[in-house]
Amino acid sequence: MHDLSRPDILSILALAKKFKNTPKAPTQAFSHKTVVNLFFEPSTRTRSSFEIATKRLGASSINITSSSSSTIKGETLIDTAKNLEAMNPDVIIIRHFSSGAPYVLSQVLKTPIINAGDGFHEHPTQALLDMMTIEEAKGKISGLTVLIVGDIAHSRVARSNIYGLQKMGAKIIVCGPPTLIPPDIQKLHVGVSHSLKEVVSKADVIMMLRIQEERQDRIQFPSKREYIKYFGLTLDTLKQAKKDVIIMHPGPLNRGVEIASEVADGPYSVILNQVTNGVVVRMALLSMLMKAGKIE
Amino acid sequence: MHDLSRPDILSILALAKKFKNTPKAPTQAFSHKTVVNLFFEPSTRTRSSFEIATKRLGASSINITSSSSSTIKGETLIDTAKNLEAMNPDVIIIRHFSSGAPYVLSQVLKTPIINAGDGFHEHPTQALLDMMTIEEAKGKISGLTVLIVGDIAHSRVARSNIYGLQKMGAKIIVCGPPTLIPPDIQKLHVGVSHSLKEVVSKADVIMMLRIQEERQDRIQFPSKREYIKYFGLTLDTLKQAKKDVIIMHPGPLNRGVEIASEVADGPYSVILNQVTNGVVVRMALLSMLMKAGKIE
Amino acid sequence: MHDLSRPDILSILALAKKFKNTPKAPTQAFSHKTVVNLFFEPSTRTRSSFEIATKRLGASSINITSSSSSTIKGETLIDTAKNLEAMNPDVIIIRHFSSGAPYVLSQVLKTPIINAGDGFHEHPTQALLDMMTIEEAKGKISGLTVLIVGDIAHSRVARSNIYGLQKMGAKIIVCGPPTLIPPDIQKLHVGVSHSLKEVVSKADVIMMLRIQEERQDRIQFPSKREYIKYFGLTLDTLKQAKKDVIIMHPGPLNRGVEIASEVADGPYSVILNQVTNGVVVRMALLSMLMKAGKIE
Repeated sequence: MHDLSRPDILSILALAKKFKNTPKAPTQAFSHKTVVNLFFEPSTRTRSSFEIATKRLGASSINITSSSSSTIKGETLIDTAKNLEAMNPDVIIIRHFSSGAPYVLSQVLKTPIINAGDGFHEHPTQALLDMMTIEEAKGKISGLTVLIVGDIAHSRVARSNIYGLQKMGAKIIVCGPPTLIPPDIQKLHVGVSHSLKEVVSKADVIMMLRIQEERQDRIQFPSKREYIKYFGLTLDTLKQAKKDVIIMHPGPLNRGVEIASEVADGPYSVILNQVTNGVVVRMALLSMLMKAGKIE
Repeated sequence: MHDLSRPDILSILALAKKFKNTPKAPTQAFSHKTVVNLFFEPSTRTRSSFEIATKRLGASSINITSSSSSTIKGETLIDTAKNLEAMNPDVIIIRHFSSGAPYVLSQVLKTPIINAGDGFHEHPTQALLDMMTIEEAKGKISGLTVLIVGDIAHSRVARSNIYGLQKMGAKIIVCGPPTLIPPDIQKLHVGVSHSLKEVVSKADVIMMLRIQEERQDRIQFPSKREYIKYFGLTLDTLKQAKKDVIIMHPGPLNRGVEIASEVADGPYSVILNQVTNGVVVRMALLSMLMKAGKIE
Repeated sequence: MHDLSRPDILSILALAKKFKNTPKAPTQAFSHKTVVNLFFEPSTRTRSSFEIATKRLGASSINITSSSSSTIKGETLIDTAKNLEAMNPDVIIIRHFSSGAPYVLSQVLKTPIINAGDGFHEHPTQALLDMMTIEEAKGKISGLTVLIVGDIAHSRVARSNIYGLQKMGAKIIVCGPPTLIPPDIQKLHVGVSHSLKEVVSKADVIMMLRIQEERQDRIQFPSKREYIKYFGLTLDTLKQAKKDVIIMHPGPLNRGVEIASEVADGPYSVILNQVTNGVVVRMALLSMLMKAGKIE
């Protein structure tokens, strides 16, 4: 999202909207195209979403996961990718635990690369589907205040949304315990808060992040109970929110931790719309790349 | 099978037969349909059979296994399924270690669900392919005596076959050591025997179950040697059987345990026919669900 | 490769060349064909190459890996294969850790079997793609001297190339430490050397093998440093080579072990051409088998 321009974003979202309104339009345009999913981290929803998007376009998917990959035999990532490229796939989608891995590949390969999440860096297709969902619910993005709550420091979702939403004219406030907000976040021109209750009334959009207990080396907040008390989104906290606020979450949900079940399943929630939009946003991106080749 | 009516069963078997007689008929009817295989237990034959059935219909398969699933991140089964549904698949096939999991999903999703085996509860597509195989071999199901031998208590195959075959007019006798026959089996109106030799002569169909050593918490029969002696199907035991008996097994085989190799590979065996019929039965079911949407 | 005739090889290579020159030709010929990848060893490149070849032909792939396979439940390989065959796939591709496993299956099944690597025995599609790459680079195979360097004893790639290249009229020299060259290699009518520097000048083609540390039960050469010194291919060693020598490697590369990065990425290297040719060679083989059924 750091590299995409506002017109890039607009054209992706416009095409995604078109796919959403004319679902499963029969086409043979991509019937001989091959998309490789190269996933070095486990993933259900992102991999499935890309795979469904690929197949709905009529193209083929090849799944390569780290457990089946030659990298376990000591091959470098670049060699793995160059080998894949030598088989002439049309697009390579990569998820990697190292920030910058997709960028490195884009420098050495001619094949179009899609970043499906890299370390703590970016998750651009998540930001695109989030923007589509906001635009759908609110009719616009520009001028909205988006509140992102949780572990900002380790969230590629937060980072991509900050880059993307700001380009589209939204104002961002991040909210979380001081240990989970990176010290240099001010450089990104976002508001910062350490109390959800304090800022919830300002938000047009509340984006809750998943507490990823498995990703943290050590406990960076006092206790789960205390986290829920100050940063969990409950019906009670929502009372102070705008009447037309929408609630988002990239999933998977920790019900009862960062978000109460009543909120996740409540009327303000657009969480499942995000998932639905994920498929069409990825269809848009894949079809643009399969038609045009590398975008730079 | 508990919920399917006799006409439902008849129409599935009729369509399966049609697919068997006109294999690989070219069609574009399902070329934009997506079938998700959501498997929480390892499986070769059932998953492959569904995948081949899906692809032979011209539709696409997406495989999600427990190891790659977000449920390892603490997401609930219902959230995983609702997320999948939000991607608009046409059918979700689920295998789960918990009895009732597919039923729960069918209550919260609009997408058609196929139960590919749930805990010790049911494995309905296995029963359907078994019924097709019996009908093919014997020309009818009604009036036949089907002997099911082995670990009745832990067998979803046994349970689905009991429900299904009784609806089709067959008489069922279950046979196994007392510890492997549930105490309340009488409620299902089946005959019970604790000696294979005693009942083998009555059977038109002998359905051997796999001894699933990996599934039992503790040894529920004295020893493997003793099990083989009393409940293993050998050529010697078969001497007392009807001349036109057929031998079935859901696989995978434990050769030399519940079934002797000479029997599994012998002239009465229809074990590989069961596998072949599994594909067309699943094609029938999938094509009915992809055409009609949810069956209730 | 031991069983293929020279005309067989020529016709496979001719068809592969045709696929290479007319990439992604649209066809519906194989749209209802199903290819099973039955892999008992992990593999990225071979499995992906077969899968891409299958899909580029318009056919469907089903992946079965050892971890998902019923063989973990104690089923025999032959039973697993017979069950797959009962589902009527058009081709079964097998990789197995036991030498001879594909041969055994070819004796009991009617379905065409492709050996994708069996133990220390053969890896015939690798030899075919190597031959295609040599012919492409040198205009011929007959009369060339091919130097194969490394762990000859445990290399199915070496064995298949020896069989195949000799049939096509090439002269083979194998080179490696005495412990990694099988004592009976002389029966195959190859030259033997224990010093890369001694023979490098004779080679038209240098085929470096991967040092597969994970496959050896014990260290069969003094030390990695010593191995590199005597058998690693460096720019320095290459100075003594012919000016038009080509460098091959089946991958994955151990950069800095059997091959220096400058050599792998240098002008003589045709390593990525091998990967590209792997797809079209497999397309050729698959299309011949899907058209003709079993070749014997």
